[in-house]
Amino acid sequence: MNYRFVIKQLGLLCVALSAILLAIAGWSAVQLAFGETTEQHPFRAFRLAGSVGVVIGGTMWWFTRTASAQFGRKEALLLVALSWFGGAVLAAQPYLIYAHIGEIPGTEHPFREPINCVFESMSGLTTTGATVLTRIHEMPRSILLWRALTHWLGGLGIVVLFVAVLPSMGVGGKRLFRVEAPGPEPEGVHPHIRETARILWLIYLGITALQIIALRIAGMDIFNAVCHTFATLATGGFSTTDASLGGYHPNVAIDAIVLFFMVLAGVNFGLYYQLIRRQFKSVFKDPELRLYLGIILFVSTIVTITIANQPIVLTNGETVAPSLVEATRQGLLTTVSMQTTTGFCTSDFNLWPFIAKALLIMVMFVGGCAGSTGGGIKVIRILIAFKVMVAELERVFRPNVVRPLKIGKSTIGPELRLATMAYVFGILLLFGAGTGLLKVMEPAGTIDMTTAASASVATLCNIGPGLAKVGAVENYAWFTTPSKCVLIVLMALGRLEVFAILVLFSPRFWRSA
Amino acid sequence: MNYRFVIKQLGLLCVALSAILLAIAGWSAVQLAFGETTEQHPFRAFRLAGSVGVVIGGTMWWFTRTASAQFGRKEALLLVALSWFGGAVLAAQPYLIYAHIGEIPGTEHPFREPINCVFESMSGLTTTGATVLTRIHEMPRSILLWRALTHWLGGLGIVVLFVAVLPSMGVGGKRLFRVEAPGPEPEGVHPHIRETARILWLIYLGITALQIIALRIAGMDIFNAVCHTFATLATGGFSTTDASLGGYHPNVAIDAIVLFFMVLAGVNFGLYYQLIRRQFKSVFKDPELRLYLGIILFVSTIVTITIANQPIVLTNGETVAPSLVEATRQGLLTTVSMQTTTGFCTSDFNLWPFIAKALLIMVMFVGGCAGSTGGGIKVIRILIAFKVMVAELERVFRPNVVRPLKIGKSTIGPELRLATMAYVFGILLLFGAGTGLLKVMEPAGTIDMTTAASASVATLCNIGPGLAKVGAVENYAWFTTPSKCVLIVLMALGRLEVFAILVLFSPRFWRSA
Repeated sequence: MNYRFVIKQLGLLCVALSAILLAIAGWSAVQLAFGETTEQHPFRAFRLAGSVGVVIGGTMWWFTRTASAQFGRKEALLLVALSWFGGAVLAAQPYLIYAHIGEIPGTEHPFREPINCVFESMSGLTTTGATVLTRIHEMPRSILLWRALTHWLGGLGIVVLFVAVLPSMGVGGKRLFRVEAPGPEPEGVHPHIRETARILWLIYLGITALQIIALRIAGMDIFNAVCHTFATLATGGFSTTDASLGGYHPNVAIDAIVLFFMVLAGVNFGLYYQLIRRQFKSVFKDPELRLYLGIILFVSTIVTITIANQPIVLTNGETVAPSLVEATRQGLLTTVSMQTTTGFCTSDFNLWPFIAKALLIMVMFVGGCAGSTGGGIKVIRILIAFKVMVAELERVFRPNVVRPLKIGKSTIGPELRLATMAYVFGILLLFGAGTGLLKVMEPAGTIDMTTAASASVATLCNIGPGLAKVGAVENYAWFTTPSKCVLIVLMALGRLEVFAILVLFSPRFWRSA
Repeated sequence: MNYRFVIKQLGLLCVALSAILLAIAGWSAVQLAFGETTEQHPFRAFRLAGSVGVVIGGTMWWFTRTASAQFGRKEALLLVALSWFGGAVLAAQPYLIYAHIGEIPGTEHPFREPINCVFESMSGLTTTGATVLTRIHEMPRSILLWRALTHWLGGLGIVVLFVAVLPSMGVGGKRLFRVEAPGPEPEGVHPHIRETARILWLIYLGITALQIIALRIAGMDIFNAVCHTFATLATGGFSTTDASLGGYHPNVAIDAIVLFFMVLAGVNFGLYYQLIRRQFKSVFKDPELRLYLGIILFVSTIVTITIANQPIVLTNGETVAPSLVEATRQGLLTTVSMQTTTGFCTSDFNLWPFIAKALLIMVMFVGGCAGSTGGGIKVIRILIAFKVMVAELERVFRPNVVRPLKIGKSTIGPELRLATMAYVFGILLLFGAGTGLLKVMEPAGTIDMTTAASASVATLCNIGPGLAKVGAVENYAWFTTPSKCVLIVLMALGRLEVFAILVLFSPRFWRSA
């Protein structure tokens, strides 16, 4: 294991993130200079966090700058895991410092507890969107921007790092999808990896710009448009108000724009690359994309029907009279928000009928497409698992008929089948373990089964809100510290596709050779 | 598909079961003659049910007696599925007839509803032990005996039919374990299948006799000893009192005997065959047996610890003061009862701490060994699934290292690995589907998540009692008819190892060639 190189890369990452913190400090300074705010604490918090980060990261880099670039699969896996955990600790610093030097109304602000800060930053970097905050709009703008930025950086990290950067560091093109996989490699992604990374980054940036402009035209002010765009593109879900997207309720245009871009964010980014290369046919024939859109349509239709004849309680506290239009709007937006694992809420779906809630939990497990910023098991794996089940059924009465398992034009070999089943089963096991741990670790009587189970899936699949006590209008602040640690680990496990973290617990991983 | 042969075999089965009904009618007649009872209705019910059954079965056989003996895998699967569903309908007749011609105290007896009778008989034949009855001790002895006999016959059917008879009908030795499988074939079972069937039957009979004698010596009267033995050996769980085994509470010997034989019933019957052939070493080295005993020891220890410092409420209504002895007794018996999927209850474990309940639900999923009368996923599949997960983890950082997956001395090939993962995943899917269906089909507010989930696993894994409203001191009578249909299907799916039923829904199954 080339530890020196891993430390060097972590140091560089630390410097880069700290530079962003300093940039936010600069933005705060400008706001102070122009008299847009009089609060000095955010500026000081970001300046301190950024400076310390630059020094630590710089030191790490300085002592390891001569490290050999020998970089294998093991180093890559270790680096990925450490990046997210280290990144979360670093990203939590502004929150913690601000809460301790600032005069926050009420001394019991959640950010005074380090665990809450790390929870919030891990939730951001893993694009989960589970929050410990209430009275979010009272937070300074710089903190809200950083919160949204953690989403955007995390989402960019997932798309670019896993699809492009890691392979260029010696984790080959084929291997790469073992980290973000086991899903089949997206067809047609350019083989030259640096070039791919550059194009993916431009696509991400381009879609971001489009959504900001669209939201601005729809009437959102520029700051909120930026924050919500960051949260949408990364399928994160942090908003700038307690009511989440419901705070903009009467504005249909905003809902429609966010809906559209959530759907885009849940699509394999390799497909956008194909679109640029004008391979329209292969994009529209993509089996994963079709199933993804099919599930959204099917589930949102049923959810809409179940809520059509009842008043809908919005997250902003208003109640809307039963109407098919409103039910369609809320049903579609909530389904897309849950399946893409974004977690924006406009209505309190915890009050919806059981069928609607069960379907929403189901699409939480399904998640977005492979190669998107969405979490969950991923549509392609669900498709493979389903085909494996059908094939196994046929094998019972036709053991000698060997039929190749095909997804689109590509054949899924036995290794990938087994890896996919193991992955799906692994997610279910972790979901069960998470639920059980939360039930055991919270004081008896404070957490019901629905809360524990939905908190487990909402973090493991990187959604954010769940049901009952972690529902659309609730938050995660009330969990005890051990439970928060479990939730943090679940977020990381889900985001880094389980195996990237779990391998670190395998004794064989640490043995040389 | 050779339908004529399938019908012929079903006719023969029908005649055989009806002959047993007539034998019970005869026993009732003897009781009447000797003045041991004055109730004529049971006698008439069994006589009528048996006579009709003989006529129907005889007719089926008569018209198909010339059927060619061409018998393939498809016919075998269809026959297995129809045997259990047809058998359940036939076995329900005495209950239904008795309730309609007899003077049962209170006209609202559950057996007046046909669905309840089929539920009870399917629960018997699948060795589940879920009941719709209360005031069980008021039922006539002939009904109670038949109820216990359905267990014993079902258990014998599973062991002999799946391990020995089916193969002799053209479903070869290797294929057979695709029905009762996918689990590896037990080593050393005699290749000559009729001989194997005969020996398995003798083993089953021998252990039955031993337990009856043991229970008689321990102080149980002969009738109850027979009924409880039938329920133990089949890992069924029907008792002759509402308090289940708890009705005999102060008697430690009875608990110990039942405990011992439950453990025996959960062991692969192929191992007893090896014992007879004096292959002691391979029996004691059997990885499945070791893990099976290991899980029992581990789980019962933890369960015991969690209940050691609290009073224990028995199923007979008594409360026992906290004591390590009592906690050990109840913890061990309940764990074994749940893991072997028997479902005998001595204490109301619904009142136990969450950890104990979670562990009990977990061992319900694990179940007994392959080739036993126990239900659940089976220990060997859990072992394979665990090894597959570990191997997949290693593949992430060592994609080119191919290590054979070994259980004991046998290598588990890629096909069996995939089949096992598909099976485990299938059980989890069915568990989820069952839970969801129960929640949706019961009137809102009458069924909580714990009840729905535990009823789903308790039927799918053939245990019987679950938690909350289907707990140790509750019953299944309160479910609506649609829910009971779901539960009946779950019992059959679990007992016939899922695929044997599900293949019938595959269009390809019904196509010729």
